[in-house]
Order: sequence, then C-alpha cells, then structure tokens
Amino acid sequence: MEEIITRYKLTIEYDGTDYCGFQKQTAIEENSVEEILEEAVFKMTQTKIKIFVSGRTDAGVHAVAQVLHFDLNKKFQPFQIADALNNHLLGEKISVLKCEIVDENFHARFGAKMRHYLYKITNRRAPLALDKTRSWHVVKNLDIELMKEAAKFLIGEHDFSSFRDAKCQSQVPIRSIEKIEITKQGDEILIQISAKSFMHHMVRNIVGTLCWVGSQKISPNEMQKILSSKDRTKSGPNAPAHGLYFLGVDY
Amino acid sequence: MEEIITRYKLTIEYDGTDYCGFQKQTAIEENSVEEILEEAVFKMTQTKIKIFVSGRTDAGVHAVAQVLHFDLNKKFQPFQIADALNNHLLGEKISVLKCEIVDENFHARFGAKMRHYLYKITNRRAPLALDKTRSWHVVKNLDIELMKEAAKFLIGEHDFSSFRDAKCQSQVPIRSIEKIEITKQGDEILIQISAKSFMHHMVRNIVGTLCWVGSQKISPNEMQKILSSKDRTKSGPNAPAHGLYFLGVDY
Repeated sequence: MEEIITRYKLTIEYDGTDYCGFQKQTAIEENSVEEILEEAVFKMTQTKIKIFVSGRTDAGVHAVAQVLHFDLNKKFQPFQIADALNNHLLGEKISVLKCEIVDENFHARFGAKMRHYLYKITNRRAPLALDKTRSWHVVKNLDIELMKEAAKFLIGEHDFSSFRDAKCQSQVPIRSIEKIEITKQGDEILIQISAKSFMHHMVRNIVGTLCWVGSQKISPNEMQKILSSKDRTKSGPNAPAHGLYFLGVDY
Repeated sequence: MEEIITRYKLTIEYDGTDYCGFQKQTAIEENSVEEILEEAVFKMTQTKIKIFVSGRTDAGVHAVAQVLHFDLNKKFQPFQIADALNNHLLGEKISVLKCEIVDENFHARFGAKMRHYLYKITNRRAPLALDKTRSWHVVKNLDIELMKEAAKFLIGEHDFSSFRDAKCQSQVPIRSIEKIEITKQGDEILIQISAKSFMHHMVRNIVGTLCWVGSQKISPNEMQKILSSKDRTKSGPNAPAHGLYFLGVDY
C-alpha cells in the first residue's frame, strides 16, 4: 500500500516570555515551542513529527507570524489541524493562526525569500509595566534621525561579522539587508528589519549598535567603520531578547 | 511647629493581570495595586498614607495612565518620589510615569472632569497568544459599522441602569457619555469611551452589548430599547476585564 505524505504549513503566534526559545534544548526541564507543538501534534495524531521552522528564535523572543512545516501520513482538512492543535495548546501562549496544505517542494526554512523582524524600544525614564516583557526599556534619549542615518550603511550585501554572535555557526558571514525602517510613536521606537536570512543575534546586535548612535555615544558614520572592521568587539551590546518579534516571512 | 502637608499627584501604568484590582480587598492573601503603592511609599518615607484614585479598576483591568493623589508631611522633589517608588516597585508590573506637586484643592477622584477608557477586542478564529491577558478574544465576525450605529444611542446624558452592575453602589444611575469611538486595525477592534464618570462594570456591559450588535444577534436599534428599559437583564454580557484599559483622566 502506498503511503501518502501530506505536508502542512503552519503560521503561529507566540509570546516567548515563558519558553526557552523555539528549538528543543538539551536540558530536559526547559520547555521549547517546538516540543510543545510536537506534543500537540502527537496528541492529535499519535504520530511523532519533525518540525522545520523559518526562524529559530531565542528565549524571550516573540513571534507575530512564525512559519513552520511538518509531514504527516494522514490527511486532515487544514482547519481540523488548526482547531485541534489550538485545543491542545489551551494553557500555552502559542496559537496556530493558519494551517495550509502545501506541496512537497515547500520548505519553511530553505524556501524563505525574505524574513521580517520587528524590534520594539520604549524610550522613557519610567520603567515598563504593561510592556515589561515586550519592549526594551531605554532611558537615554534616542535621536531616531541619527539612527536612520546610521542604518543606511547596513542596507545591501555586506560581511556582517561585526554583528554575528561568537557562537554563530554560519559558514559565510555575508548577508543582504533589504530594509531597515525606524519609526517613533509617542515614547515607542519601532525598528523593522528585513533580509533573506540573518545570523545568530544579528538583529539584536544591530539594534544595540543603533542605540549607541541614537544616544550619541558614536556618530552615524561610525556604523560604517564598525561594519567594515568585521570585528564583533567593535559593535554595540546585544539588545535584550524580549524586545524582538519575528514578524513574518515571504516565500 | 507648623506641619506642612504636601499633596502629590501620581500618574501610573500597570498590567492588571496579577493584581486583585486597584483597591484593597478584605482577603489578606490578595494583592492590590493600592497596597503595593502604599507599601512603596512607606518604604521610602516611613509614613502611612491614604491613596485617592481616579478610577478604581477591577482585577485584570490595565491602566495606561491612572491618576491618584496622597499627602505627605515631608517635601520631596517630584522626581525623587517617582524614582524612589519605581525602585521599590522593581518586581511589580506597576510603574510611576509622573509625579507632580499639586495644591490641596486637587482631588484625583472628585476633581476629574473626564475619564477615558479603551476596550480591546481581537476578532479572529485563532486563540490569542501575545495578547492573551490583554484583549478579549471574539470569534464571531463583528461588523463595526453596526456597532457604531448602536453606540450613537448611548451618547449624551441617560439613565444607564441597564449597564450597571447589580452591586454598583452609586445612588444616581444618570451618567453622560461624551464619546464612543470604534476603530478596526487588522483583526483588532478598539473601543474608546469617555465620560465624566462611570458606574461599576458600565464600560464592560456596554462593550458586551455592542458585541451583540456587531455579531448581529440584535439590531443597532435594540440598543435604544435596552437603554430605555433601565433593566440590566436586557443588556449583553459583561465583557472580560482583561480587554479593558484605564487610558487617562482630564482635570
């Protein structure tokens, strides 16, 4: 009997606060979004699946529309998958926004044409209450015009060694940033960054360095020097995980 | 020696999720925003104070800019109060946004000319992850044009008995709603309501009834009938606390 494999694409939302990140960790006591999803699929189908995700987020990082896929040798209607998984995820801060059946050529990770991240900063003196786990609290006044000027140097294809984490396993440090958009609404600064792919901690290291510029610790032109130095010790701090949102991905 | 009393006005933000509401409750194990603030002031000044608040919010209700006042027989610079209190509130989801010295005629509760509330609904099939404790999840499709039509009947001075809680202690059920603004961005519906004062659960009962209209359970014109019935059993459900935000107050 021929076994028919169906590939399911899920779009999910999660609040990263209570999770150790998307990926399974070696420490057993930690809970990852991946394991919780695998368990939910198992409860529904009695099948162990392997999940392929578009963007592996760190502990504390949120997702507005993360995309992943997995295969099952059973066929369900997409809404059945979404509703049943959401039912098994009731106690969690993970929600299946959409399920689609895709063909076997679809790959959540390798098929991504563009990934979009949002970084949220609250720029004020008072600590955060409502957005305590949702935004980076920066007290020093940030000038977003300077930040925009500095961001321009990062657009296009570059060697981003200065902004990659020491533990980053990528073999080639070349990436191509399509867009960095910086806007301010009240005391909230939003930084949207889009690229086909990013290296580990790349968005957060860029945001940390943009904040050096915004607070006038360095001039916008320094961004170019930091970029061409290809030296991680030259760039700014790794901005905290809880200000980062995986916004979405284009295929 | 003459004792000089200084009156301090605070503007605070809080996430209501983990609190039993603004006001002290009789049950000892519950923690109210009021008690936590009184304790923070005590830690700072060794003085027991009494807090007067503009809007007593229920458990789960959030505040973007709640206003309160208290008196101290010591004089501090406003920024000293704000910084010291925020320091004592570090583990909490309560933040002092602003402290001002006001004259003895200022009263946070009785001086309020207009109070502003926001109610947030997420109108989609998928459960909420990011806004699980921050928005009311409504699955049935809501037509905001119908809701706007129904809201018009509530503008102005009326007897709001149909929308007051059974436990509401107010002697006169007459209130005057200045404005109800309903907007939609993506799957998020925002309802802003302003009035000099509200009765207990009034905003949430109005929102629950507006949702009846939006989901076409009743027609917009029914809102007028419900209002003039002065009968709480005629109006819609009390919308959940966690979608409600105390936005601010004018003096």
